[in-house]
Amino acid sequence: MTVAHSDDQAVQLSLHDLISTLEAILLRNGASGPVARVLAANCASAERDGSQSHGLFRMAGYVKNLRSGFVDGRAVPQVRDVGSAFLLIDAGNGYARPALEAAIELAIDKARSAGACILAIGNAHHNGPLWLDVEPFAEAGLIALSVVNSVTYVVPHGGHKRLYGTNPMAFAVPRADGQVLLFDQATAAMAHGEVRIAARESKILPEGIGLDASGQPTRSPQAILDGGALLPFGGHKGSSIAMMIDILAGALTGSNFSHQVDWSAYPGAESAHTGQTIILIDPTKGNGSLRMFTGRIEELVEAMAGAGQTRLPGERRLAARKLAAERGIAIEAETWKQLQAL
Amino acid sequence: MTVAHSDDQAVQLSLHDLISTLEAILLRNGASGPVARVLAANCASAERDGSQSHGLFRMAGYVKNLRSGFVDGRAVPQVRDVGSAFLLIDAGNGYARPALEAAIELAIDKARSAGACILAIGNAHHNGPLWLDVEPFAEAGLIALSVVNSVTYVVPHGGHKRLYGTNPMAFAVPRADGQVLLFDQATAAMAHGEVRIAARESKILPEGIGLDASGQPTRSPQAILDGGALLPFGGHKGSSIAMMIDILAGALTGSNFSHQVDWSAYPGAESAHTGQTIILIDPTKGNGSLRMFTGRIEELVEAMAGAGQTRLPGERRLAARKLAAERGIAIEAETWKQLQAL
Repeated sequence: MTVAHSDDQAVQLSLHDLISTLEAILLRNGASGPVARVLAANCASAERDGSQSHGLFRMAGYVKNLRSGFVDGRAVPQVRDVGSAFLLIDAGNGYARPALEAAIELAIDKARSAGACILAIGNAHHNGPLWLDVEPFAEAGLIALSVVNSVTYVVPHGGHKRLYGTNPMAFAVPRADGQVLLFDQATAAMAHGEVRIAARESKILPEGIGLDASGQPTRSPQAILDGGALLPFGGHKGSSIAMMIDILAGALTGSNFSHQVDWSAYPGAESAHTGQTIILIDPTKGNGSLRMFTGRIEELVEAMAGAGQTRLPGERRLAARKLAAERGIAIEAETWKQLQAL
Repeated sequence: MTVAHSDDQAVQLSLHDLISTLEAILLRNGASGPVARVLAANCASAERDGSQSHGLFRMAGYVKNLRSGFVDGRAVPQVRDVGSAFLLIDAGNGYARPALEAAIELAIDKARSAGACILAIGNAHHNGPLWLDVEPFAEAGLIALSVVNSVTYVVPHGGHKRLYGTNPMAFAVPRADGQVLLFDQATAAMAHGEVRIAARESKILPEGIGLDASGQPTRSPQAILDGGALLPFGGHKGSSIAMMIDILAGALTGSNFSHQVDWSAYPGAESAHTGQTIILIDPTKGNGSLRMFTGRIEELVEAMAGAGQTRLPGERRLAARKLAAERGIAIEAETWKQLQAL
């Protein structure tokens, strides 16, 4: 392992070496070999892509949830083929990503054959960035839309109490150059991970993000975390989308709604025991060849630039990924120390 | 036909009689029998449901577009079964709703058998309310999500020029009592039809709805219509959803993007010659029986009330529908006169 560091400097690791490090941590804390391998790759990839909220920041949570027994680190996902366009996947109270991995090849085949495929992943704990879940499908030439419900933090529009999770959605389509056009966004006014980071850094939030425990607007991230709540983005429209996501990810998969998650019997645990749904569509069934479809995407991307949208969704992520490929993944000395402790 | 009216009073019509009236108007203006029947029922149902922007208000537009030749009122939709979970429908440059009608039974069968079905309707002019397109599927026990792209009116986040349409999305799921839980919303900060009504009534809009022709924020609906633009709802997140909808409704169906619609060769025409995509999912493939699924929906609806959300999406529509069933559909005398003139 090539590591260039001193106590106060950033550590530089290759993706491969970072995965090995994380895998060892997960194995030592109760994950099975296959689960540790998948989660380590997922978490390291998030860090490589510059995600503060879904990268190494999450490792302490993985360890606490595995140790508490709330999440089963040795779960073996069950994939059931229940229709020509439907896979029902029971994650066995394990993390969601290993369940997705178990179904990904079959899902691609089914979507290409039927024209569409639903992946309904239930009894799962989703903990990685959603963009990594849709990206491989778009790389395989498919349109992918995924939603996850999570832990109750978001007040419905006009309400006064937490109900929905931050309920992210991610959407990806193939581009002409083999790249992917992708967005990944929470339906909360701010993602929960971002609020936690802002609280850790004692930042003040913009207006319109959240309420404190008494239901009053607040700009303190800590007040939101301490019994307060997040607002949905975009008022009643964002609230409706949060509802849709709790239905698609919770009810369709036979899993908890965000407000039903309960880890109180597992000290140290804090994980969304919910569901995830992925909708795959084969664009070649609609608009001729894949080349014709990706040509249309390029047409739209050009028009977006022409209308003055200077940054595409996902661009910052791709830039971080490119830099990491060239120079390795930079890890702060403090974060590195915390990893060693795990 | 039972009509109780004087020159200055509202006219009261049954749904059946309103449909007959609209059907006659459409037949006289170039629609075929089947097309006139479907459009009249669609438009009258929107009026019954209390929609100002998609009811009788749209009739003058139907007539102008049919007369101009931009929309083919005699189009015969072609339904192609291209996969066990995919129907590709060519509306033949006609209105979208007759194309949907031609596919609706087959789509329900396919969704129940495969677990999902995509309806990609291209070469179409969508002009009715989207909620009427998803409602029949939810009444049949399916989850339905539909998106339509339209005419360029919305600036992408950070941009300065119109690019996206108001690009609505509608989502419907079955409830335990045979009713439907449904929302229907534009991704613009305000629907285009609502801006037109506000302009007609010389209203001042709230902040954050649109820009004038010089790219400056404005509260005048007329300034938005006169070369200005609408903003997406919810900043960059709403903008990403508008992009997704232009891809799903435009590119997937092989139809125009919103910014590519061009009626300049057809004087009097103003219609979105684009596409519509509907995603159907059979919830019984995920969470057991339909009864179990709708039980979960009731659970969520109760929790929404418990969190202080006093009004469900779609409630106003259902109340208007109930009133219309009891008392008939009230039509203003002025609107009635305009209809007679068509």
